[in-house]
Amino acid sequence: MRGKFDLDSVYSRIDKDLKKHIATTKRLLMQPSSSQEHIGIEDCADLVSDMYRNAGCDEVEIVEIQGNPIVYGECKGESDKTLLIYFMYDTMPYNEPGWKHPPMGAKIVDMKLPVGKVKALVNRGSYNTKGPMAAFLNSVEACTKSVGRPPLNLMFVAEGEEELGSPNLPIYVKKDKKRLSKADACYFPDFEQDGDGTVNLYLGVKGVVYFELESSGKNWGRGPRDFAVHSANKAWVDSPVWRLVHALKTMTSDDGNNVLIDGFYDDVAPPSAEDEEVMKAAAKNFDAQSTKDSINVDKFMIPDDDKEALIRLYTTASTLNIDGIWAGWIEKGSKTILPHKATCKMDIRVVPNQKKDDMMPLVRKHLDRLGYKDLKMTEIDTGYDWCRSSIKEPVVQAVLRSLRAFSGEPNVWPSSGGSVPFYVFNRILGMPFALGGIGYGDLAHSPNEFMVIEGNKKLAGLAEVEKFQVHFMKEYAHAR
Amino acid sequence: MRGKFDLDSVYSRIDKDLKKHIATTKRLLMQPSSSQEHIGIEDCADLVSDMYRNAGCDEVEIVEIQGNPIVYGECKGESDKTLLIYFMYDTMPYNEPGWKHPPMGAKIVDMKLPVGKVKALVNRGSYNTKGPMAAFLNSVEACTKSVGRPPLNLMFVAEGEEELGSPNLPIYVKKDKKRLSKADACYFPDFEQDGDGTVNLYLGVKGVVYFELESSGKNWGRGPRDFAVHSANKAWVDSPVWRLVHALKTMTSDDGNNVLIDGFYDDVAPPSAEDEEVMKAAAKNFDAQSTKDSINVDKFMIPDDDKEALIRLYTTASTLNIDGIWAGWIEKGSKTILPHKATCKMDIRVVPNQKKDDMMPLVRKHLDRLGYKDLKMTEIDTGYDWCRSSIKEPVVQAVLRSLRAFSGEPNVWPSSGGSVPFYVFNRILGMPFALGGIGYGDLAHSPNEFMVIEGNKKLAGLAEVEKFQVHFMKEYAHAR
Repeated sequence: MRGKFDLDSVYSRIDKDLKKHIATTKRLLMQPSSSQEHIGIEDCADLVSDMYRNAGCDEVEIVEIQGNPIVYGECKGESDKTLLIYFMYDTMPYNEPGWKHPPMGAKIVDMKLPVGKVKALVNRGSYNTKGPMAAFLNSVEACTKSVGRPPLNLMFVAEGEEELGSPNLPIYVKKDKKRLSKADACYFPDFEQDGDGTVNLYLGVKGVVYFELESSGKNWGRGPRDFAVHSANKAWVDSPVWRLVHALKTMTSDDGNNVLIDGFYDDVAPPSAEDEEVMKAAAKNFDAQSTKDSINVDKFMIPDDDKEALIRLYTTASTLNIDGIWAGWIEKGSKTILPHKATCKMDIRVVPNQKKDDMMPLVRKHLDRLGYKDLKMTEIDTGYDWCRSSIKEPVVQAVLRSLRAFSGEPNVWPSSGGSVPFYVFNRILGMPFALGGIGYGDLAHSPNEFMVIEGNKKLAGLAEVEKFQVHFMKEYAHAR
Repeated sequence: MRGKFDLDSVYSRIDKDLKKHIATTKRLLMQPSSSQEHIGIEDCADLVSDMYRNAGCDEVEIVEIQGNPIVYGECKGESDKTLLIYFMYDTMPYNEPGWKHPPMGAKIVDMKLPVGKVKALVNRGSYNTKGPMAAFLNSVEACTKSVGRPPLNLMFVAEGEEELGSPNLPIYVKKDKKRLSKADACYFPDFEQDGDGTVNLYLGVKGVVYFELESSGKNWGRGPRDFAVHSANKAWVDSPVWRLVHALKTMTSDDGNNVLIDGFYDDVAPPSAEDEEVMKAAAKNFDAQSTKDSINVDKFMIPDDDKEALIRLYTTASTLNIDGIWAGWIEKGSKTILPHKATCKMDIRVVPNQKKDDMMPLVRKHLDRLGYKDLKMTEIDTGYDWCRSSIKEPVVQAVLRSLRAFSGEPNVWPSSGGSVPFYVFNRILGMPFALGGIGYGDLAHSPNEFMVIEGNKKLAGLAEVEKFQVHFMKEYAHAR
C-alpha cells in the first residue's frame, strides 16, 4: 500500500471516513480533561494514546512526569523531514453558568453566522484546542489508511497542563531534548479563521504570568485578623478590602489600560522591520466589526478606524488584567460585615523582550515601594515566555502556501494576543515553528465554546480542515 | 395569686425553672430564621407566638404584612405604665465556613474567657438577638407563674426582617400607630456586657444604608458585554473590573478611612454637650485591649491611648464600608478571562443629622460627576435612620438603676456603632427608648456566635439576665 504520496487518495479517504472522524472528534471532546479541577486527565491521556495508534504511530508512550502525563507518539513518514506537533489535551473548566447546551455533550447544532449557515459542535475544548487536535489526528489516520503513511515523519507531544500554564512542559522538554531535537520544526494545529472566512496567521505568541494578590488583616496587622466582623466596626477598624482597592488603583491609569508599575514596559522592544511590514499588510484586511462581534464587545479601547493601531495593541501590548476578585459577602442580600481579607487574580501578558520571570518581581517592588509589603503575591502558574518565528521560516511558508490553496491570502499578524507554551520548542530547543490553519470556532474560555463541523463557502468544516492539514504536511515535507 | 409585685418570688421562680428556660432558649435558637435566605421564618413566627402565650400574653397576633410577619403580643401588668418591647426573630445566614460547632446545634460548651470559665451556648442568633429575646420572655413567664403578672403592661413587637434592614417595620408601625402609641416607652433587650464584665449602655444607634454597585460592559458600552472573554483581549478591550476599582478608589482616602464623596459629612452634627459629657466619662473605663480581643483585631485605626477619640469614632463616625466584592474567576486555579462585570456590596452608617435617604443620592452624584454614570447602584435594604435618647429619660434611668444593682456602674456611650430600627419608635412614634442590659455574647454576623448561659462573678448567665429584666421592669413601672 505504501507508495508515492498522493493527495487525492488521502482527500477521498477523508470524505469517505468523515462520519467516523466526527465520531472520533466527539469522543475526544466528551472526555472531560479539566486541568484546573483535575477532572478526567488520566482517562483523556489514555484516549489520546489510542488515537495516536489509530493514526498510525509505531511508537506511543504515556510519559509520567511531575504533573499530568505527556502523551508522546512517533509516526514514520515519506520524507526525511520531521515535524513535531504540539497538542494540549486539557481544557478550561466547563461548569460556569450560561451554557445553552451541555458543555460536555458535543451537540451538533445549526448555527446562523454572518457568512451563512453552518453546523457547529458545542463543547468545552472544541475550539481551544481538542477540536483541532482531533482533526489533525484524523488527517494523519487518513494518510495511513489511504497511502500508508503521512508525507513526513511526525512526532506528537500532547500535554495536559496548558491551562495551568504548562508548569512541567519545559522540564520535560529539557529532559527529552535528545529525542525531540530530531524534529526540524514544530507546529500547533489551531482554527484561525475569522467569522468572515479570512485566516489569521500569527507569527508568535505572547507570554503570560498569573498570580493572586491578597490583602489580609492577619498580614497587615490592621483590620479583622481571622474572620469577618460586624461592619459597625468600620468606624474604628481598617478594611483589608479598601486596602486591596487602593493598592490596585496604583497599578494602572484611571481607564485601567496603562500599567503604572515602574519598569513594566522597560524591556518592551519596538516592533522589528518585518513586524512593521506585516502589521501594515494586516491592517488592510482587518475587519474591526466582525472581530468585535466575535469577542462580545461594543467598542475597542481605541477607535475602530485606526486599524494598524488596533493590530499593534493586540499584537504587541503587554497587559495587566484582573481575572477575578473576591471578598466578604457575595451572596444575595445584605450581610453587614467588615471582611478580613480580599483577593484578586491577575494575569500579565509578556511581549518581546520582557522576561516572564521579571514581571512578578516588578509588581512586588511596586507594592513594597508604596508601603504594601503586607499584600501577599502567589504565583498560580509558572507562566510562559513569548516566542516569535520569522515569516521566512520554511515551516511558516508551508503553512502560508496551504492557506492560500484553501482559503486565499491570510492575514498575517506578528503575534497572537494569547499564549501557548511554544517558547519551550522555539527558545529552549531552538526550533522554528508555525501555528494555525483553517477552521472556525469561538468562545474559548467562555460558555458555549464551539467549532464548525460542517462549513460553507467561507468557513471550513472538519473535512476541509483535515485536507488542509494533509496539504500542509506535504508542503513542508518538500520545503527547502 | 395576683398581689403586690414581689421580686424575690420571681427570682426564686427563675432559679427553679432555669433548666426549662434554657430549653426554651435552645428551642428558639435552633429554629432557623435566616431572613436573607428566607429559611424558617414562618415556623419561627409561630414559635414566638407560642412563647408569648406561655409568658402570659392575653392577646397574641401574627400580623401579616408585606414581608415577614410581625408577631404582636400584649400582657397585662401591675402598674398602668406600658412598655413596648422590640424583638427581632430573624438572624443572619449561618452557612459560612468556620463554625466549630453546628451553627444551629445550640451546643453548650465550656469556654475559658479572660475573666474566668463560663458555659456558652454556640448558635447563630444566640447573641444577635434571639438569646436576649428568649431571656426576656422567660423573665415575663417567671413573673406570671410566680406573682401572676409582670410589674407593668407589656406590648411585644417582634419583626422578622431586621437583618434585611426592616423594610416593612416603618409601614407596620405607621399602620398600627394607634395601638402602639399607648406605650410610654420602648425597650430592646440585648446583652451589653464587655469581656471584663462591665456593661455598655448605648443611648442611641446609627442608621444604615446598604447597596450594590455594579460595573458592567453592557451598561458601559465598553468591555465584554454579556460574558467573560479570553484575557488576551485585554490588549484592546477595556475592563469593567478595573473600572470598578478606579471608581471605588475615588470614594475614600488611601487608607480607606475617610470618605471623599462631596457632602458625605455635611450634615454630621457635632456631639451635643450631653454627648461630650457622656463620652468623657466613658473614656475613663474603656478597655481598648479587651475590645480589640473581642472584635478580632490587632490595631485600631488610631492609637489605643486616645480612648476618647476611639469612643468618638465608634459613636459618631459615618462610614462607607465594602461588605463584599466579586468578579470573574474566583475558584481555584488560573482561568485567564477578562470579566464582563464586577460588583460590590457597600454599607453606609448614618449619624445625626444625616438622613439615610440622602446617602445613596450623594454616592450617585459623586459617581456621575466623575463620569461613572454607567455604574449601577441598587439599594438592597431600605435602611434605617439613626436615633438617640437622652440619658435623662425615665426608661434610660430605670435601665441605669438596674445595671448598677446587678453589675456596677455601666459605661454609657452616646450611641452604638451598629443599627437597629429604633427610629420607627423613637422618630416615627416619638417614643423614648432604651436598649441593652447585662449578659455576654459575641461574634454577631461571624462564625461561632455565642451567648453565656452559665456565667461567673463578672459575666451574667441566663438566670442573672432574666432577674435583671424583672428588676428593670419593676424600676420602670415605678419611675416618675
